[in-house]
Amino acid sequence: MKKHIFNPGPAILPQEAVANTIEAIQDFQGTGISILSISHRSKEFQSVMDETTALFKELLHIPEGYAVIFLGGGASTQFFSVPYNLLKQKAAYLDTDTWSSQAIKEAKLFGEVVVVASSKEDGYKYIPKDYIIPADADYFHITTNNTIAGTEILTDLDSPVPLIADMSSDIFSRPLKVEKYGLFYGGAQKNIGPAGVTFVVIREDLLGKTGRDLPTMVDYRTHISKGSLFNTPPVVCIYTMLQTLKWIKSQGGVEEMEKRSIAKSKLIYEEIDRNKMFVGTVKKEDRSRMNACFVMAEEYKDLEKEFLDFASSKGMVGIKGHRSVGGFRASLYIGLPIESVQALVDCMREFEAMH
Amino acid sequence: MKKHIFNPGPAILPQEAVANTIEAIQDFQGTGISILSISHRSKEFQSVMDETTALFKELLHIPEGYAVIFLGGGASTQFFSVPYNLLKQKAAYLDTDTWSSQAIKEAKLFGEVVVVASSKEDGYKYIPKDYIIPADADYFHITTNNTIAGTEILTDLDSPVPLIADMSSDIFSRPLKVEKYGLFYGGAQKNIGPAGVTFVVIREDLLGKTGRDLPTMVDYRTHISKGSLFNTPPVVCIYTMLQTLKWIKSQGGVEEMEKRSIAKSKLIYEEIDRNKMFVGTVKKEDRSRMNACFVMAEEYKDLEKEFLDFASSKGMVGIKGHRSVGGFRASLYIGLPIESVQALVDCMREFEAMH
Repeated sequence: MKKHIFNPGPAILPQEAVANTIEAIQDFQGTGISILSISHRSKEFQSVMDETTALFKELLHIPEGYAVIFLGGGASTQFFSVPYNLLKQKAAYLDTDTWSSQAIKEAKLFGEVVVVASSKEDGYKYIPKDYIIPADADYFHITTNNTIAGTEILTDLDSPVPLIADMSSDIFSRPLKVEKYGLFYGGAQKNIGPAGVTFVVIREDLLGKTGRDLPTMVDYRTHISKGSLFNTPPVVCIYTMLQTLKWIKSQGGVEEMEKRSIAKSKLIYEEIDRNKMFVGTVKKEDRSRMNACFVMAEEYKDLEKEFLDFASSKGMVGIKGHRSVGGFRASLYIGLPIESVQALVDCMREFEAMH
Repeated sequence: MKKHIFNPGPAILPQEAVANTIEAIQDFQGTGISILSISHRSKEFQSVMDETTALFKELLHIPEGYAVIFLGGGASTQFFSVPYNLLKQKAAYLDTDTWSSQAIKEAKLFGEVVVVASSKEDGYKYIPKDYIIPADADYFHITTNNTIAGTEILTDLDSPVPLIADMSSDIFSRPLKVEKYGLFYGGAQKNIGPAGVTFVVIREDLLGKTGRDLPTMVDYRTHISKGSLFNTPPVVCIYTMLQTLKWIKSQGGVEEMEKRSIAKSKLIYEEIDRNKMFVGTVKKEDRSRMNACFVMAEEYKDLEKEFLDFASSKGMVGIKGHRSVGGFRASLYIGLPIESVQALVDCMREFEAMH
């Protein structure tokens, strides 16, 4: 039976990316050596790193003055690395989910943190819109997509201070006005690769201004100056990410990824709104294109497990909602084909017909 | 032509580990999902993490009171994480190579650092033996194997304060008296896995004593309490590491790895000492079993490139010495079969016969 993989991340990747990874593990570019054993100092891997960096910049239309680096440690490592590098005195944060809360917690170790707004009291069911960003903050931090609540900031916000965004879960799903950001970062494991590699995009003129002594590995300038090869990088993860970026390019780039993300999310949300058995959990205008969260309607509440079992029997994987929200979550990352979304919608319709 | 892979890391891995990784990328344990897309919260991956941790402990005979965690970011991240977690006032370091120097640099951000001895003036050609470890230091840090110089500390040192070791490049190559260490760490990419995962073994009672506020991801207690699943770990790298550990067990464990390491290093060093064209670069008693460094003898100096080309034509990969030492370096990590060492020795003999 075909599996439809709605995992919230690590997530399904394009078949080509997976197939090319296997090929490189068997024999990396005809070297007779596995990508698992290739030297990160070899000219062949240097080419992989250069190509990955260049393609990342090309696809997101990243202008001059910005550096792109690839690191280990996950986005969680960036929660403290960002303030370590950039927080002189005060930073502003928008609290939209568990992830922003974690980022806020880490920033407090390095200076004053102003939480400009939070939707926590309402279970993070919307993105706060009315707030004032202090003009004397060193930066303003947002989480563009909130995987647990299922909300997303779909525009590039205006900010009087450098805008910093955790884009772990929606990077490459729409074109960005990169020049509106001071820095954005994220784990690759939702949209562009396997778990184990993290990207950071930085406007270089923001660095080196805190007067703080930084550990070498935390200092973004270390990795910029060495082209992400200061120390041994997560070689195979970067290789798979490159294959995913190549696939994105072959499909029409980030502009095409946005069209597909709109189509996929429209398909599932229309069914959630139409189907009497299910209810969306967040404010419609803030619905995430990446993570559709929904629960059983009140009168069908007892059928939650039954639907999960039914969907599972039809090949749906990973649609159980996060424990803090309950219900269901369909993650619609870039690698997920629309056919899988259709299969889930069919499940929902069939389940409705059964009751 | 068969390649003999002497890469200094990332390094050659056992064939079984590579084959099992490919299988899991195609279909992870019959789930119909690639290991690249499996949720790190799935029960299947939880088993992988539990088994990896348990097998790591079993093979190294790690006693009660020690935790084993797996992180991203490489050993270089541990250069600052160790003092961040453990340095209250003063730490002692032994300077044996580039890697210890880097660790020393990071520690200085967190307190006083006493370098008890250094062989830097002599090009790191030996391991200093006569030094005094301050009894009031918070810990004493060593680098057990020095990949660039080619020296190794082959005994478990006595120390009046907790002994901390970077074991990136010789872990699992000999049994350890674990109870003599407070902490040891390393990147997996030499002996036990691909690049992208780092192990840390910690005597738990040493933690939480600096009074310093730690970033969540830097605090070892975060990862201990969550069994290395606080955030998304480098899933596929951990899987390949588990396959390598299983292979080590199937071959007879770390005790057998030591026998092989002794045999492989004896084979190459005997040839270096016998062959009139080559000379070892380090003090014999401190020779590394992991990285045999040698150069052309003075009268054959002009033939360095010719030997490299000759060896390359015979399938030898990665034997060019580090630029700071020159000449040649044959890395003899766990995954390298003795047949490859014999092939290199044959090359050296043939080259000698030609001149």
